[in-house]
Amino acid sequence: MVMNKNYKYPDTAAYDYVVRELEAKGVQLHNIAEITYGLQHKFLPDATLADYEQEVVNVMHKRELLNNAMVGLQLDKLATKGLLDEPLQSIVANDAGVFGVDETLASGIATLWGSIGITNYGYVDRTKPNIIGQLDNSGDKINTFIDDIVGAIAAAVAGKMAHKYA
Amino acid sequence: MVMNKNYKYPDTAAYDYVVRELEAKGVQLHNIAEITYGLQHKFLPDATLADYEQEVVNVMHKRELLNNAMVGLQLDKLATKGLLDEPLQSIVANDAGVFGVDETLASGIATLWGSIGITNYGYVDRTKPNIIGQLDNSGDKINTFIDDIVGAIAAAVAGKMAHKYA
Amino acid sequence: MVMNKNYKYPDTAAYDYVVRELEAKGVQLHNIAEITYGLQHKFLPDATLADYEQEVVNVMHKRELLNNAMVGLQLDKLATKGLLDEPLQSIVANDAGVFGVDETLASGIATLWGSIGITNYGYVDRTKPNIIGQLDNSGDKINTFIDDIVGAIAAAVAGKMAHKYA
Amino acid sequence: MVMNKNYKYPDTAAYDYVVRELEAKGVQLHNIAEITYGLQHKFLPDATLADYEQEVVNVMHKRELLNNAMVGLQLDKLATKGLLDEPLQSIVANDAGVFGVDETLASGIATLWGSIGITNYGYVDRTKPNIIGQLDNSGDKINTFIDDIVGAIAAAVAGKMAHKYA
Repeated sequence: MVMNKNYKYPDTAAYDYVVRELEAKGVQLHNIAEITYGLQHKFLPDATLADYEQEVVNVMHKRELLNNAMVGLQLDKLATKGLLDEPLQSIVANDAGVFGVDETLASGIATLWGSIGITNYGYVDRTKPNIIGQLDNSGDKINTFIDDIVGAIAAAVAGKMAHKYA
Repeated sequence: MVMNKNYKYPDTAAYDYVVRELEAKGVQLHNIAEITYGLQHKFLPDATLADYEQEVVNVMHKRELLNNAMVGLQLDKLATKGLLDEPLQSIVANDAGVFGVDETLASGIATLWGSIGITNYGYVDRTKPNIIGQLDNSGDKINTFIDDIVGAIAAAVAGKMAHKYA
Repeated sequence: MVMNKNYKYPDTAAYDYVVRELEAKGVQLHNIAEITYGLQHKFLPDATLADYEQEVVNVMHKRELLNNAMVGLQLDKLATKGLLDEPLQSIVANDAGVFGVDETLASGIATLWGSIGITNYGYVDRTKPNIIGQLDNSGDKINTFIDDIVGAIAAAVAGKMAHKYA
Repeated sequence: MVMNKNYKYPDTAAYDYVVRELEAKGVQLHNIAEITYGLQHKFLPDATLADYEQEVVNVMHKRELLNNAMVGLQLDKLATKGLLDEPLQSIVANDAGVFGVDETLASGIATLWGSIGITNYGYVDRTKPNIIGQLDNSGDKINTFIDDIVGAIAAAVAGKMAHKYA
């Protein structure tokens, strides 16, 4: 990695891309807030769903989140079009259990407010609440990365709210 | 970190220490195998509980696992005796939600066979099956790290078995 | 991530893909061995360059390494062809300093034999010895991921050899 | 980990502890700023040493940094007094090359502003500039964790400044 001093990171374009690609798969930001609400409500009974929605928007402006999310969403999209080289194409298309790059990118998102995000990400990745459950079973489209990304964003928001109220 | 060329890593002593400290808290290796069995049985219907027990023993000989486990178990033990400096003593004793070092050490264990271990660790850390649930509620002893360590070992074994049968 | 029980991970095809793509950019496995030799020779004076070359081949059969390497090499290749969506295309093409996904994938490789791999990876990423220095300055081709991947493989081999001789 | 709702995280006490323990080993915050300045000056020629010093203070108020630093500094201190159980005592006292918990805690600090922090941490851990070089050779005191912690804080500051100026 060489730091290119003259390149300005496109914050707005990156945020818009991630929001647009999530929406194209039926994921609205309030769907992510609902997942975090489900995770944290018993710990933070005073926080409203609107508080969670605001934090989802805030958290989604972090570059590290946007970078990991863009890569994951791009790979799902390319795999859906059959544009990845083999054997990566078939590994992603089959959501191979020992692939792990989806979990790696998701962990980078989930831990943005500390390693406490890891357990919430792991939990929703297995239990697939709300919109995550729908993504995982969505027929012809390849959704290998997006379910992990959505769960990780929800976990990052949970981490941030835990810190805020600690 | 300076690599001390003349110091031989004490593999046997480290393994014995971790097994002994886990047993002192009521955790037998077969209890860990039971957690992994619960996680993986639906994916690997042919693997027996004895297969899982053998893999727990194998996995627990990895130095990276032993190093993280020794540190976590040591910190629980020192905190139980009140021997940590403040405010670390009270942070560990209260299992502060925003501490995160327990999750950091556990993640180092859970991912020994790939990042796929992260989700299983996160899941058992929240659902607290079998022996993990007992650790978390054990009264006067401080068990801030041990529940994460046990869950992470179970997750590492799940990762290894997933690779073996992939 | 859903574990697809019927999909067999394509170990041979994945290994062949990574070796072929590295060679297409002028990276032979012995070039990676030379980097590790440079890192470890003072700690392990008895290990020969041939020992390192053998370990590079061994290490490169690990699926976690292959998965991260395939994704990184694929992204460099797609970016070279201009096939990524904006703004990811320009972020990768400019090797933006705050991107970080290259470091994330590389860390997943570097730590395959423990977190001790992180420091060797970081060191060669900055000092760019041997083939890494040539990759970083290679004109029209986009090499945002490959230099990190090569450095991380060299660091993973260093970690494995450190354990072997510990 | 159970989130204890009634325990308030002791932010001020944690910050004061880390600053005090670093100073007890001869590390002032401006020494950390000097390391980051050395890393980043060529990329950010307009930032002054005073800018770096201000960011060190800011960064050191992050709980995740304080938590990892407290644990590492505590372990060095206990090992210096011979208060760790065997074989952990001798592993830490000898700074065993395959231990890795020092790198794990340091990575948790270095990546607080993104995975780009990993390479700077790795680089200073090997090259040992400024105060880090003095820590590593300090005779009778055990400094297994502190050099990694200092290097990781410097790397985290570098990551934050890279984002600020990106």
